[in-house]
Amino acid sequence: MVRRTGRRPGNPDTRDAILGAARTAFAEKGFDGASIRHIATVAGVDPALVHHYFGTKDKLFLAAMNSPIDPSVVIPEALAGDPDLVGERLVRFFLGIWDSPAGKAGVAMLRSAVSSEWTARLFREFVVSQVLRRVRAVVPLRPEEAQMRVSLVASQLAGLAMARYVIKVEPLASAPPEVLVAAIGPTIQRYVFGDLPGVWPDS
Amino acid sequence: MVRRTGRRPGNPDTRDAILGAARTAFAEKGFDGASIRHIATVAGVDPALVHHYFGTKDKLFLAAMNSPIDPSVVIPEALAGDPDLVGERLVRFFLGIWDSPAGKAGVAMLRSAVSSEWTARLFREFVVSQVLRRVRAVVPLRPEEAQMRVSLVASQLAGLAMARYVIKVEPLASAPPEVLVAAIGPTIQRYVFGDLPGVWPDS
Repeated sequence: MVRRTGRRPGNPDTRDAILGAARTAFAEKGFDGASIRHIATVAGVDPALVHHYFGTKDKLFLAAMNSPIDPSVVIPEALAGDPDLVGERLVRFFLGIWDSPAGKAGVAMLRSAVSSEWTARLFREFVVSQVLRRVRAVVPLRPEEAQMRVSLVASQLAGLAMARYVIKVEPLASAPPEVLVAAIGPTIQRYVFGDLPGVWPDS
Repeated sequence: MVRRTGRRPGNPDTRDAILGAARTAFAEKGFDGASIRHIATVAGVDPALVHHYFGTKDKLFLAAMNSPIDPSVVIPEALAGDPDLVGERLVRFFLGIWDSPAGKAGVAMLRSAVSSEWTARLFREFVVSQVLRRVRAVVPLRPEEAQMRVSLVASQLAGLAMARYVIKVEPLASAPPEVLVAAIGPTIQRYVFGDLPGVWPDS
């Protein structure tokens, strides 16, 4: 589940220059608008070196965000199985990551996301390109509903992370995971698959 | 709804000294443990001056947090009315505040809350003493369930504020308030009054 294993290739200064250029490019141009070629130019290196150090543009984004998880691995894992239990499963999986050593990096990401307009924009690009898009690819949702459903899920899970791991409001902060799965799972299930009258004009 | 009106009394340096001492005291000793007398001593002023500038300890806490709202006014207003509609009403009210000029101060509070362990502790004291306690005083909940129910509500509303006003994930960020009332109201209703099997050992 944790992304980095083994030795990181390359000169640390060059890596940092690439990661800095990548953060700026992703925040300013968005994930789709930012190119490896442009990032390499800003960092003063050859595009092939960026690929050599980081692999794909997705992997570069994960490295730039210090993401403790790789959504391309985690999301299909969390969403596999009985669709009627997707809510419970997602909460259980989410808590499993946050309660693990990766949770510390999660808190750091959340702190950074909230710290300024610029970092919020970068985090939004991350959520949209790495999380929401992958969820939509795995879960069969009507295209016109998918984005709203997934952003409602994001709102409850982000708030759960805030309340449990950052603000630490009791008894939520110390509750056993299964208690929160029982409480919040049905919320997520409804956001993903439930009827949401009043949310869409034609529903 | 907005707290401050008219002229603020007193010398700005003295006010700042009191507010600084209050923040430290509330974060370190909690709301109940912090005394006006202690805060006055740290600020080097007479306790009577603290009362003169800020009124009660509750009001001093609001000033120390730069809270754009006074929960003692807002919460009874938001919760008055048909209990079956408390979820919808709470979401509508919450969005009304955040969509108003007070929302800017809300974003600043959220940013500050997340920025460090210390500010998170201060914010937690604020949520518990000024928000959760007042909700419990107004809504008839079983005492052993109240804190969990209210902290679940807090998790969804905090996440809504994060997603809509800080990270600005679409379409949630631009959705008309009534769409979000329809989507999220039932979540809040269930957290406040719904059966939550699996959440309490004896339920």
